Amino acid sequence: MELSAVAVDIGTRSPTVLLNRADAAEMGVRALDRVQLRHADRTSIGIVEVTDGIVARGTLGVTRRLGHISGTVDVTLAPRPDSVSFIRKKLDDIELEHHELRTIIEDIDADRLNDVELAAYVAATYTNGLSLAETLSLTEHMAAVGESLAWDDAVIADKHSIGGVAGNRITPIVVSIVAAAGVKIPKTSSRAITSPAGTADTMEVFCPVEFSLAEIQEIVEQTNGCLVWGGAVNLSPVDDKIIRVETPLAIDPPGQIIASVLSKKKSAGSTHVVIDIPYGEGAKVRDLPDARELAEDFKRVGEHIGLTIECTITAGSAPIGRGIGPVLEARDVLAVLQGNGPEELKLKSLRLAEILLGCCECDESASELLDSGAALTKFREIIGAQGGDPTIESAALVPGQETVEVRADRSGVVTHIDNALVSDLARRAGAPKDVGAGIRLDCAVGDTVTKGRSLFTIYAERGEKLADAQRLLAHSEPVRVRSREEALVERI
Amino acid sequence: MELSAVAVDIGTRSPTVLLNRADAAEMGVRALDRVQLRHADRTSIGIVEVTDGIVARGTLGVTRRLGHISGTVDVTLAPRPDSVSFIRKKLDDIELEHHELRTIIEDIDADRLNDVELAAYVAATYTNGLSLAETLSLTEHMAAVGESLAWDDAVIADKHSIGGVAGNRITPIVVSIVAAAGVKIPKTSSRAITSPAGTADTMEVFCPVEFSLAEIQEIVEQTNGCLVWGGAVNLSPVDDKIIRVETPLAIDPPGQIIASVLSKKKSAGSTHVVIDIPYGEGAKVRDLPDARELAEDFKRVGEHIGLTIECTITAGSAPIGRGIGPVLEARDVLAVLQGNGPEELKLKSLRLAEILLGCCECDESASELLDSGAALTKFREIIGAQGGDPTIESAALVPGQETVEVRADRSGVVTHIDNALVSDLARRAGAPKDVGAGIRLDCAVGDTVTKGRSLFTIYAERGEKLADAQRLLAHSEPVRVRSREEALVERI
Repeated sequence: MELSAVAVDIGTRSPTVLLNRADAAEMGVRALDRVQLRHADRTSIGIVEVTDGIVARGTLGVTRRLGHISGTVDVTLAPRPDSVSFIRKKLDDIELEHHELRTIIEDIDADRLNDVELAAYVAATYTNGLSLAETLSLTEHMAAVGESLAWDDAVIADKHSIGGVAGNRITPIVVSIVAAAGVKIPKTSSRAITSPAGTADTMEVFCPVEFSLAEIQEIVEQTNGCLVWGGAVNLSPVDDKIIRVETPLAIDPPGQIIASVLSKKKSAGSTHVVIDIPYGEGAKVRDLPDARELAEDFKRVGEHIGLTIECTITAGSAPIGRGIGPVLEARDVLAVLQGNGPEELKLKSLRLAEILLGCCECDESASELLDSGAALTKFREIIGAQGGDPTIESAALVPGQETVEVRADRSGVVTHIDNALVSDLARRAGAPKDVGAGIRLDCAVGDTVTKGRSLFTIYAERGEKLADAQRLLAHSEPVRVRSREEALVERI
Repeated sequence: MELSAVAVDIGTRSPTVLLNRADAAEMGVRALDRVQLRHADRTSIGIVEVTDGIVARGTLGVTRRLGHISGTVDVTLAPRPDSVSFIRKKLDDIELEHHELRTIIEDIDADRLNDVELAAYVAATYTNGLSLAETLSLTEHMAAVGESLAWDDAVIADKHSIGGVAGNRITPIVVSIVAAAGVKIPKTSSRAITSPAGTADTMEVFCPVEFSLAEIQEIVEQTNGCLVWGGAVNLSPVDDKIIRVETPLAIDPPGQIIASVLSKKKSAGSTHVVIDIPYGEGAKVRDLPDARELAEDFKRVGEHIGLTIECTITAGSAPIGRGIGPVLEARDVLAVLQGNGPEELKLKSLRLAEILLGCCECDESASELLDSGAALTKFREIIGAQGGDPTIESAALVPGQETVEVRADRSGVVTHIDNALVSDLARRAGAPKDVGAGIRLDCAVGDTVTKGRSLFTIYAERGEKLADAQRLLAHSEPVRVRSREEALVERI
């Protein structure tokens, strides 16, 4: 059917086209069906939504993802893409072939799958698992789509932490140490999806984080490092599309984690990568055996695609730094680089940097680079290269002015700090949008506290956000204090 | 955030609200998130889509499902519904409790789940299966939502055929016989989803099929039967919503089939039901053991919710009638009721009617009711009660005028007629939208044919549709003719 295209400014997540109900009935297409759009010399795929009023009969509403389409379009019902039958096969728990996974990844990349099909893919790989062979194929195919970076150097370092641990802001410190050691480390990071801050949100307190691939290349050539937002570049476009449907379900199949992380590293041109796998109550990986298995698989898949991988298995049942939220985390990062800051954040960053440098066969000492101030100097260089103020000091990192101090209601020992609850509190207080909002922990697990001592402080930029956080606090206990006896044997 | 509602005429499948990107960022909500909408004294749930232009800052676009909302609306991020964690549990292959399934069904009914979550539910129940206890709970909860019919009679008959068999149009014949025997049978049927005709499409050739529950009650009180479209009434609203996501994936978990069918029968007030389970190559149920297991489960679940169930396991590897497509099937139905028509259609209808009458403890003979013309008279009565012409004759049922006869290219035996391929051909030819389009089979499996004899005829209302069908025919063999030797031993 020949229709006349009209632009409709809606959504960006799928290549939606709006059809008038009468035209849709005429063509025998229904909502979620795919149509082939032929216009000029190009062919695109649209996913159908039906309307009575937004577009009239004879017209086709094209949303922003299809913004290049105008004029007369020939619209026909498109055949169901092959990948739907492969997803169906995976639902039936049959291992997928190399070429079948390629088709799925290419169809996701080209937006040929609708939400229902994408969700079925994620659900099938979650419930039926991905074999090592499938994970290998997936990693290769995910790395093959999208753009990539290329370097002249034989060694390009990188790191990744599996999420779930609050205040785990080691990346700026590790990158600064490694870059100061003379090893290139083009680090892309995420923004917060369900957490109060991603590394990109924290770095944005210091400097811009959105750059093109050419700009990233230039920053790294100049300083050996960068700390930028991965979402601004097209290194692993399929990953973003898969994450979009994983998030509402809060599932993350292990094989998919490996493929997502390593395909991105491959596309970034990295050669030597440390993967930090925190485990424990509240972390994404629950126990040591699972963490070890994941580490082994990471190494196997990495080897297959030509990456040298080291894995660290770290304690993940409590926050690492003291600050949670962009500005509060930025303060911790700067403090550690200046020789102060939370002890655990410093130790973990140093250890990761040391392992990464060792893996890159670099003889420099991570702790000397930190203690000498070389890492701090490198951090300021990177900030400058990314367009921020390289002379920034802690005094300029001002958290929100609306605060509440939460005090111990008894004397005893801090037995637990809940990652998920402190993250929720920080989000309620306004993080990451309100960059000054968040939590500052005034204690650590194992501390002995007396009644009335501050356990943590909530910071907000706006009174109503502080009130939101306080409402959540009313029926939760993010920091648990127990008497010495109760700390061992708790009566329920 | 207080926003001013503006009506946006789009879609009907979910309660979508459009937020301006800036407002969405301000609230920290993303596409697919749920928001709580408070206006006047009511609270509704909306599923978010983000736009830059369709709605301005400060306004909320409400789509038709939320058409009752106007004026100032208080919009807040809604908590994730409990059912999402239950779906997650099912993805982890943990059996769901009675109350957990109730929450899922209630959330589906209230449109609180987005497409990703719904698809994950269907995928999880498909890959991990539903236990008998889960199927029982699901059936109860699905029957509890939506409206229902109530009857004074102790016995209300009903039937259902599991799909996948082309030309299996026994329903109008069975209903006419049973109603003629004096047993009430308020039959609701579907329209074609992926097939060339549903019973509702075929009946619409004779008379209107869209009625309110009150009208259905009146038609049945008057004639003992009805043959109406189930989609026009709200007997099992959740079923329609689940089918919408099953269709693109072409999956249909057995437990879900049972819950869908029996909850609908329960809501229709039926007490005695025959379930026809066709099995074989190309049918939904592949083999006899699967068919038997499904039959047992149907009986167990039926007993649990107070229904008397009989199951028939029937041959489903080839079409039953000769016509495929609304008008061509209507011709078969009328012919059988008039004492002629395809033998298999007649035999299968009689046998089903006989079993259903027996199950209802009715002494009338199905074959006598058919042979005497009582069933035909009853069929005409029902047509009249539904507003059609009760005197209609076959001559008025005119198939499409664009035809192609497909002839045997060799002499031999008809070894196979492919359900899926003849259905595809009929759809390409224009069925069900073009009611006269479809296929008339001129042979049956086992027939001996000579070269050049007609195997089937394609009917279309429009030349381009006939050409579409012929293109499919060019590389497929819907009716297989083999020499006597090849029919036994085929060389590949």
